Amino acid sequence: MAGKLRSVVIGATGLAGQQFIAALRDHPSIEVAAVAASPRSAGKSYADALRTDNGMQAWFVPEPLPAAVASMKVMGTGDIRPRDFDLAFSAVEADVAREVEPALAKEIPVISAASAFRYDDDVPLLIPPVNADHAPLVHEMQRRRGIKGFIAPVPNCTTTGLAITLAPLEQAFGVQAVVMTSLQAVSGAGRSPGVIALDILDNVIPYIHKEEGKVEVETKKILGTLQRSPVAIQPHAAKISCTCTRVAVLEGHTESVFVSLRKKASPAEVAAAMREWKGAEVARALPSSPPRWIEVLDDPFRPQPRLDRDTHGGMATTVGRLREDGVLENGIKYVLVSHNTKMGAAKGAILVAEQLRAQGIF
Amino acid sequence: MAGKLRSVVIGATGLAGQQFIAALRDHPSIEVAAVAASPRSAGKSYADALRTDNGMQAWFVPEPLPAAVASMKVMGTGDIRPRDFDLAFSAVEADVAREVEPALAKEIPVISAASAFRYDDDVPLLIPPVNADHAPLVHEMQRRRGIKGFIAPVPNCTTTGLAITLAPLEQAFGVQAVVMTSLQAVSGAGRSPGVIALDILDNVIPYIHKEEGKVEVETKKILGTLQRSPVAIQPHAAKISCTCTRVAVLEGHTESVFVSLRKKASPAEVAAAMREWKGAEVARALPSSPPRWIEVLDDPFRPQPRLDRDTHGGMATTVGRLREDGVLENGIKYVLVSHNTKMGAAKGAILVAEQLRAQGIF
Amino acid sequence: MAGKLRSVVIGATGLAGQQFIAALRDHPSIEVAAVAASPRSAGKSYADALRTDNGMQAWFVPEPLPAAVASMKVMGTGDIRPRDFDLAFSAVEADVAREVEPALAKEIPVISAASAFRYDDDVPLLIPPVNADHAPLVHEMQRRRGIKGFIAPVPNCTTTGLAITLAPLEQAFGVQAVVMTSLQAVSGAGRSPGVIALDILDNVIPYIHKEEGKVEVETKKILGTLQRSPVAIQPHAAKISCTCTRVAVLEGHTESVFVSLRKKASPAEVAAAMREWKGAEVARALPSSPPRWIEVLDDPFRPQPRLDRDTHGGMATTVGRLREDGVLENGIKYVLVSHNTKMGAAKGAILVAEQLRAQGIF
Amino acid sequence: MAGKLRSVVIGATGLAGQQFIAALRDHPSIEVAAVAASPRSAGKSYADALRTDNGMQAWFVPEPLPAAVASMKVMGTGDIRPRDFDLAFSAVEADVAREVEPALAKEIPVISAASAFRYDDDVPLLIPPVNADHAPLVHEMQRRRGIKGFIAPVPNCTTTGLAITLAPLEQAFGVQAVVMTSLQAVSGAGRSPGVIALDILDNVIPYIHKEEGKVEVETKKILGTLQRSPVAIQPHAAKISCTCTRVAVLEGHTESVFVSLRKKASPAEVAAAMREWKGAEVARALPSSPPRWIEVLDDPFRPQPRLDRDTHGGMATTVGRLREDGVLENGIKYVLVSHNTKMGAAKGAILVAEQLRAQGIF
Repeated sequence: MAGKLRSVVIGATGLAGQQFIAALRDHPSIEVAAVAASPRSAGKSYADALRTDNGMQAWFVPEPLPAAVASMKVMGTGDIRPRDFDLAFSAVEADVAREVEPALAKEIPVISAASAFRYDDDVPLLIPPVNADHAPLVHEMQRRRGIKGFIAPVPNCTTTGLAITLAPLEQAFGVQAVVMTSLQAVSGAGRSPGVIALDILDNVIPYIHKEEGKVEVETKKILGTLQRSPVAIQPHAAKISCTCTRVAVLEGHTESVFVSLRKKASPAEVAAAMREWKGAEVARALPSSPPRWIEVLDDPFRPQPRLDRDTHGGMATTVGRLREDGVLENGIKYVLVSHNTKMGAAKGAILVAEQLRAQGIF
Repeated sequence: MAGKLRSVVIGATGLAGQQFIAALRDHPSIEVAAVAASPRSAGKSYADALRTDNGMQAWFVPEPLPAAVASMKVMGTGDIRPRDFDLAFSAVEADVAREVEPALAKEIPVISAASAFRYDDDVPLLIPPVNADHAPLVHEMQRRRGIKGFIAPVPNCTTTGLAITLAPLEQAFGVQAVVMTSLQAVSGAGRSPGVIALDILDNVIPYIHKEEGKVEVETKKILGTLQRSPVAIQPHAAKISCTCTRVAVLEGHTESVFVSLRKKASPAEVAAAMREWKGAEVARALPSSPPRWIEVLDDPFRPQPRLDRDTHGGMATTVGRLREDGVLENGIKYVLVSHNTKMGAAKGAILVAEQLRAQGIF
Repeated sequence: MAGKLRSVVIGATGLAGQQFIAALRDHPSIEVAAVAASPRSAGKSYADALRTDNGMQAWFVPEPLPAAVASMKVMGTGDIRPRDFDLAFSAVEADVAREVEPALAKEIPVISAASAFRYDDDVPLLIPPVNADHAPLVHEMQRRRGIKGFIAPVPNCTTTGLAITLAPLEQAFGVQAVVMTSLQAVSGAGRSPGVIALDILDNVIPYIHKEEGKVEVETKKILGTLQRSPVAIQPHAAKISCTCTRVAVLEGHTESVFVSLRKKASPAEVAAAMREWKGAEVARALPSSPPRWIEVLDDPFRPQPRLDRDTHGGMATTVGRLREDGVLENGIKYVLVSHNTKMGAAKGAILVAEQLRAQGIF
Repeated sequence: MAGKLRSVVIGATGLAGQQFIAALRDHPSIEVAAVAASPRSAGKSYADALRTDNGMQAWFVPEPLPAAVASMKVMGTGDIRPRDFDLAFSAVEADVAREVEPALAKEIPVISAASAFRYDDDVPLLIPPVNADHAPLVHEMQRRRGIKGFIAPVPNCTTTGLAITLAPLEQAFGVQAVVMTSLQAVSGAGRSPGVIALDILDNVIPYIHKEEGKVEVETKKILGTLQRSPVAIQPHAAKISCTCTRVAVLEGHTESVFVSLRKKASPAEVAAAMREWKGAEVARALPSSPPRWIEVLDDPFRPQPRLDRDTHGGMATTVGRLREDGVLENGIKYVLVSHNTKMGAAKGAILVAEQLRAQGIF
């Protein structure tokens, strides 16, 4: 294992933390060196911390719990000595993140799935193929905050697939406006308490608290431009309007997207732009990069979350139903599926770490 | 029962036919005088026709099978003598409708859930509160086709809720354009074969064959204007663009709607317009009319199909999440739920019969 | 309202409490005079206590929230003066019940959905048609505990349907042993946290904590005999063995039952015994009594929870698939469906109150 | 590919046929040399035969369609010249199997997922680890029917997991009687028409046509003994009684099993017997054999179909909740999960082919 980056996973016992541990299981260059969680778990072995009073082993991801992690002693989040690690992955809730992440970032990079710092002016919101060039903003963060590390959050899981599909459109045709309705999987809500079965069986919930605002603001930040002076991200000018709903799907967010392009393009031209899009150079051959970021499907019944969410290990966004839209100026419409807990969460965060390392940012 | 209109239900053994029979069970002014189906069922009692080889009683609606209908002898569709009846309700597939409905319409009104004649120039597409004034078009149909009866189809179930919510907006503010994504219930696909569980559990299907075109064309026809000479419906000029999906919901279509109004209106003004809308005079006190056509809900988690589909017996459309939209000109957005097999099918067709009777059209 | 019994509902804001409120909405002889809940809710109007931070009205039963209850000020559970009421309905968790119910029972009857006192020697476990004759045990409870009121818990929701179907078998043929596998609805777990969607979509959970023991002990107590001296219930001698599972069903427990009878009976004889069973005399015409306690269905595809749970307002148990069993001595097997949150919870508890009142116990 | 056995898959376009094709994709010793289907598909490429009128590519298994098969021209089932192949895999319906399989079996082995010949006296019903020693019965079949090939059907998918878990119990303790309730996945019903969503969402169907009889007869045949003269299988003497239900699960049958052993054994002893069971020698290292046939889980919440069906590629049966049962003599009870379309269908059939080849039967 010599030579691997030593990471600490914080919030390790929750669903998002488990996804980090599963995703790092066979990672070529990053290892889980320690796990941290709330005081309730601290001091127990990780396997014991997952055991509930009624005997259940609360390991919720399909991949097996790595034996090396199972036997690790869980640290209290406050007891982490950041210098013992090369980086931290954060899977804590936003309110905990607000306290813990800055403390770690004094010394080391913190790649975070939490929303706490996404909207700060000096914090980039990275999707490696889309805006790897925003990464230098972390130097501004280090300067302003007087820290050696930094915080690099990943976007909301609903933003990710949308931003990825808009990137080639922006590049080829320009994006003026976006109308989007999401049909989101229950895993996006985690497990504490998550979506309860009584609410979602034979049902749709037409509201996800704060989600629409996140998607609108984050997408514009991600598609925005890093300015030199002052060093800051100028958000993209596109207008974005969303309605976010929850459906009875386990994993994989589906989004029905209507886009107004700056110049007219046929569905075939849009499909070609998506298929040919390679994304940022630095992101093309990272350990977690899929062979293609977007797969465009011709079968009109695709993409479907159950059938398509795991495309390229959950790292690709699948697109289908590309058609002309008659309402928006130069309108096109499509449906996308994006894996909300892989590319949209832990695996996406690991990809960000890989990118920042490849860029020499840490 | 003297004095009730005598109806024959064709396609009586299928799911849609059963919905007609259930809805007419205690109807004050229309009775089921006969049931007709394919030759396979003809000659059996209705109850026997529903019994499958493996012993199942294939009655699929929650209301009990009325005893009087259970014991009726099923007629072959071709054996109906239209003069024996005052009207027919048609629940057959489009291809069967194309043959059977014109034969019956020579003599009697045919109120139909099939799509076969919806798009003909001389055929109105009625939603009583919205466009009862289109009904006189049936006289043109009678003139052109030399028939004594007529065919009055109801719209596609996905169109119904959309058109009902657009009607008060058109009246108060004008409608320029509509972007809609539907999350449709499996009952909309019927049972032969319907949506199979293997396709929809833990999944979304992003395509419903021909549905989007139907919604776009029908909505414009319903919101259109009946011209005098030549007698014809001038479709509404609004641009409409849809993506229709299927979700794991039994009954009740959910639609995420974005509307461009002709003049600016706040969400509160839009809510007021919907709440105060009474619809066409003639439709206000029909036997199947609900107390209000639209219920606007303030709880941001509503409407939900399971909780709201049965509002006012499935005859009301529920609306929630009314917000400003920043993409479309004078944009507003909302979510609606409409009961696809009640107001959107059999009960909606019965309401059309009630309207036409009240108007003296038959 | 003069003359109605005045009840206080404790645990009123939870799902079970809401079911009590809904079930008492139009009750002819019992009214909701007050609602009590935890200190967090105390002092608010009931409607306000149900409103969550994100704007949701957390009223979870399909029946509308009665206006009279909506405006009631919620009492703290500790602030109830029992003499202000004729009886209490308890919908609190077992640990809270252990403190609150005895305090109220000093003065008034407490009809409880909690398990806290079900297994005490001086506490009857009542299903009115099955063991109304156990009711006098409450006098022993009053004597032993020196209280004026009493506690009358209803059984676990999984026990109820089983015990009801065993009662006519016991009476007609004798019951030796029972093997049962349940397929339980998610509503049985309530909402805090209840069953989360991530666990049950596309899945079965083969374990419900402590459930099997409850069913085995409770069924024997309910089918047992009230002895005179000492006053106590002699449990029934039947052997009972269960496996309890959770399935993706909203309401209605399904149970696959195999019974060894004391004397041989054909499926037709068993069906007749169930159909003809009238239950205890006192329970036959209570306000909440259904026309029949058990409906036996001939269609081999029934009973199904979605189609049959609401039979007679959720107060009847439906039985189907009656067949001979070749393993157990004089074996028969069947499937039952019982509404776990109606007859199996709040409405069943109200039925117990009606019975005890009719018996003059209070 | 030289040296691989050349197989023809019949019924290749249906779900079961696709499962054969997917399972043989990377098989070390058997290749798909041809695909056959009904006349409607014959003459088209396999990929074209899967394309529906509305543009869907009707390939329903998660594994990708192998390119070599996609381009194969589909044969009409009647046009197969058996001598062109080393064996046939049959995925046709029982009625088609009754005609097609004997024709092929004149020349070559036919390994079949159909039920048509399972109950014939001269036909073994093989689960390799359980009853590989029944295989020589095919020589009797060849003798009696005057054929060079033979038919080897696999059991019903619900039988497979049950028989596998009973095998070590029979060996260690003896099996007297079995009471079983199944909770079966919808994939067991295939797609034509399969289980429709309207029937299973928020529901349980308590009946699967003919399933219980199959499980009872097949289990006794599989656990039976091959007699020498006359050559025939003497069914096992155990009494078996089942109730088979359908639940809203995609893949993986769950079974709640109660067993009466011939001699008393504790749950720990039963667990040990299952864990240590290696099955028939010949089946231990076949290409499709899992490392263990049974995995016994200690977590009381397992096995769950979604989490455990894919254990060892869907070839292992998972068992949990091992407890004493107080009703049956020497009773124990447990829950099992078995993958109904892998070990319970196509992959199980391929395993049978591997076994028969290893035994030199063909």
